[in-house]
Amino acid sequence: MTNTQITLIQIDNYGPWTVTPEPRREVDLQTLQSRLYADLSQLFGNREGYVFFTRFDNMIAVTNGLDADDHALIQESVSNRYPVTISLGVETDASPANALGTATEHLQEAGSAQDAARTEVLRGDPLAEADRTDEDVQIAHFDVNDATGKYTDQLNEYDSFIQIEQGYASLMKHMREEHDGLSFFVGGDNIIAVCPAMDGDAYQSAIDHVREDVGVDLKVGVGRARTAQAAGMDAKHALETCRHEETTVEFR
Amino acid sequence: MTNTQITLIQIDNYGPWTVTPEPRREVDLQTLQSRLYADLSQLFGNREGYVFFTRFDNMIAVTNGLDADDHALIQESVSNRYPVTISLGVETDASPANALGTATEHLQEAGSAQDAARTEVLRGDPLAEADRTDEDVQIAHFDVNDATGKYTDQLNEYDSFIQIEQGYASLMKHMREEHDGLSFFVGGDNIIAVCPAMDGDAYQSAIDHVREDVGVDLKVGVGRARTAQAAGMDAKHALETCRHEETTVEFR
Amino acid sequence: MTNTQITLIQIDNYGPWTVTPEPRREVDLQTLQSRLYADLSQLFGNREGYVFFTRFDNMIAVTNGLDADDHALIQESVSNRYPVTISLGVETDASPANALGTATEHLQEAGSAQDAARTEVLRGDPLAEADRTDEDVQIAHFDVNDATGKYTDQLNEYDSFIQIEQGYASLMKHMREEHDGLSFFVGGDNIIAVCPAMDGDAYQSAIDHVREDVGVDLKVGVGRARTAQAAGMDAKHALETCRHEETTVEFR
Amino acid sequence: MTNTQITLIQIDNYGPWTVTPEPRREVDLQTLQSRLYADLSQLFGNREGYVFFTRFDNMIAVTNGLDADDHALIQESVSNRYPVTISLGVETDASPANALGTATEHLQEAGSAQDAARTEVLRGDPLAEADRTDEDVQIAHFDVNDATGKYTDQLNEYDSFIQIEQGYASLMKHMREEHDGLSFFVGGDNIIAVCPAMDGDAYQSAIDHVREDVGVDLKVGVGRARTAQAAGMDAKHALETCRHEETTVEFR
Repeated sequence: MTNTQITLIQIDNYGPWTVTPEPRREVDLQTLQSRLYADLSQLFGNREGYVFFTRFDNMIAVTNGLDADDHALIQESVSNRYPVTISLGVETDASPANALGTATEHLQEAGSAQDAARTEVLRGDPLAEADRTDEDVQIAHFDVNDATGKYTDQLNEYDSFIQIEQGYASLMKHMREEHDGLSFFVGGDNIIAVCPAMDGDAYQSAIDHVREDVGVDLKVGVGRARTAQAAGMDAKHALETCRHEETTVEFR
Repeated sequence: MTNTQITLIQIDNYGPWTVTPEPRREVDLQTLQSRLYADLSQLFGNREGYVFFTRFDNMIAVTNGLDADDHALIQESVSNRYPVTISLGVETDASPANALGTATEHLQEAGSAQDAARTEVLRGDPLAEADRTDEDVQIAHFDVNDATGKYTDQLNEYDSFIQIEQGYASLMKHMREEHDGLSFFVGGDNIIAVCPAMDGDAYQSAIDHVREDVGVDLKVGVGRARTAQAAGMDAKHALETCRHEETTVEFR
Repeated sequence: MTNTQITLIQIDNYGPWTVTPEPRREVDLQTLQSRLYADLSQLFGNREGYVFFTRFDNMIAVTNGLDADDHALIQESVSNRYPVTISLGVETDASPANALGTATEHLQEAGSAQDAARTEVLRGDPLAEADRTDEDVQIAHFDVNDATGKYTDQLNEYDSFIQIEQGYASLMKHMREEHDGLSFFVGGDNIIAVCPAMDGDAYQSAIDHVREDVGVDLKVGVGRARTAQAAGMDAKHALETCRHEETTVEFR
Repeated sequence: MTNTQITLIQIDNYGPWTVTPEPRREVDLQTLQSRLYADLSQLFGNREGYVFFTRFDNMIAVTNGLDADDHALIQESVSNRYPVTISLGVETDASPANALGTATEHLQEAGSAQDAARTEVLRGDPLAEADRTDEDVQIAHFDVNDATGKYTDQLNEYDSFIQIEQGYASLMKHMREEHDGLSFFVGGDNIIAVCPAMDGDAYQSAIDHVREDVGVDLKVGVGRARTAQAAGMDAKHALETCRHEETTVEFR
């Protein structure tokens, strides 16, 4: 059984800030958002976690191994370097979707995301060291079969992008509804999913669903470990095996 | 009539680089991609352009006002600061989709995106200064009505995200197929579209389509100017008018 | 005759901020300072200017070609991305030191650097376009003869550093007192000086002074142009000529 | 007794890279250097270490608590994100200067800093966990008495800077020659020194020396701990005590 610790990261009162006193320049907002994401990738990543940019004003992290002090330090480091602050909700569950659901509630109970008085909230209980196992995190790394040959080198770049977005939209919905998994587009033709304990048949059926739904062919490598980073690296190696063996689902 | 100059930005041989000699750590790839995007936002933005992250390995920019030297300097600046290089294809057309189509062909003719020998290509003809007008670029800035109240403060964060992604997927397809426009998710509940000369009825019909298709309520502010940045800032102000007047489509 | 436009950049109320409510983590301050400097390098550099980090809380830029709007945009872009704001004083003079002196007075007249109410000041008159010439900026790029062979590969790294700092301390004082020039250490064994109209004999005498004073052998390439960036690039090429021809002073 | 672990960080073959095939734009070099330093600050800082920018192409870190794997991961992370690579020499000693001396020799034995074939060297033995104590690192944080009132708000910014540089040059030489300590300017009017076991009299005598030598008045807070970050934060708090109590030397 998996036991995934999820942290919801929410920029405090961000919407109002972007238009006060008048709309801020879009290039600065894009720079701010993508750099904050890069920094959080490093801050969580240096502690073996993974962060996904999601909507940028709300980001989702897999944080097995990070305790409350680690979260507080990351929160402080952001406030020391950015014009905005972040709130963090933390929760663990066998179902990644349920973990995120409760983490979200922690923040909602503290107030609205657009309440100027609700800043730097940190709520929820990180998983105790004694309760951690080597199978807590299952990460699946999907990509599109021959995306460069079939799309990038053939289609208008935007039409390639539409194809890949369709594959992503279909997969994210299926994984959420059928498996309680959370899937994130991470650039190129890559999607990383945080999954409960799923077996090979379940992954094959997700891939079949996407092909039937929108005609996009995926393959997937799966890793399982104590932390997101170790599970994710195993998933990447498993995906390389798919590539060399021309298989569709590989575990490692 | 609009006359949009589009630049396709492609990281050279990026896919192979990410797995050579073995898969690189995901947190470093995420950091690299999002920082490169932030830097391109500034490099193009300091010259009045807009860049969208799209797939990160392929990005799309609106570059009216940037000539060949500007493009070459940006290319050089990236190679001076990153372990990867970029190729650039440039084209102008009344239809943003056609402009991107030809810009894409410029790069495809130079070789595959995964050809190690095809690096730092710069092809295409920027619009001559004499041919530029104050109506060359039309930018539409969409957001979701009361996204914070209806989604962020009510739903599981991932389910909010699914709603917003569905709205985006529906809009991007409609705008591409019906209007030759290119739509980009830019974080939060915001979508920025690069459009041909569309009138208020056309925007209303796009909003109606998304509501009927996936049940997401959008509003839109539209700006038109000589450069992406001026048109985009007008669009933001128009969207603020929608917010205060509770209207659905505003031009400025 | 040169006509150097100098901008003094001062982080507003920075000292108190670093210790309020209690001392902030040094690694975050170092990250903030060096990234702000990197961003200013790009913001001014994209407009053909040069910025020197100096004390980091006070930085000095050569800004020929930047008008008041450019300065205001840079100020706004910093406030959109950082937890601190900056004030700017601008002035032009044949003597770089005098230009900086007056630029400094502009800010001092507006209040103390540690006055919480004195923020985002922008004072001084950028040089009118009509008054600019191709000889306004003279940049000298110095380095240490065979620093790698004599110091880096032979000495304890700190003792190499002491040698180079001594050369810098001696040169900066001499250039300031004898020539009204401003010299800045820019990393490695490189010093860039913003100079009034100095001839080859004057540079040779500065080099002689440093050798006699602290025993460090320098060489220098000098460029002159309409902007800092063009003059600086000419200086670099001239320094390459010194390297290949084994000469001590070269103009280009 | 202290037991300071020092890491010398050297950018591989950097000098030649900056001028190949021709001199690279200075603004890009400045951006690259200061961002690399910012990233190293975070990479070492997230593991309780301190990094000083020194010459930028050579940086010096205090790394008690970081083992060989930590060093290798930092090296890999840099190569994943930058166009340059770094070599690392590690050594521990009661004398910081001796530790750095041996760390430097590790790299010199591997080849010249400008040898294109000598890349990503990692040599030296990090301190074993069992040998670490709570008194291994002594950090002293100096600043100039009333620098803002006496210099920043009174003098030409460059003349303030000359004063502070003179104080730094005098202190760095004295600390190196008399105490085997390594002193680093860290911005503003702040100098951080990595010291052997020095007592209050020794610090007072260093302060007296600088006042007599160049007329600059310093004060200092000193901390001692298992890691650089803990010792450094103690030093900052001790310096705050100096400020409130109007004393010159404080330990914590």
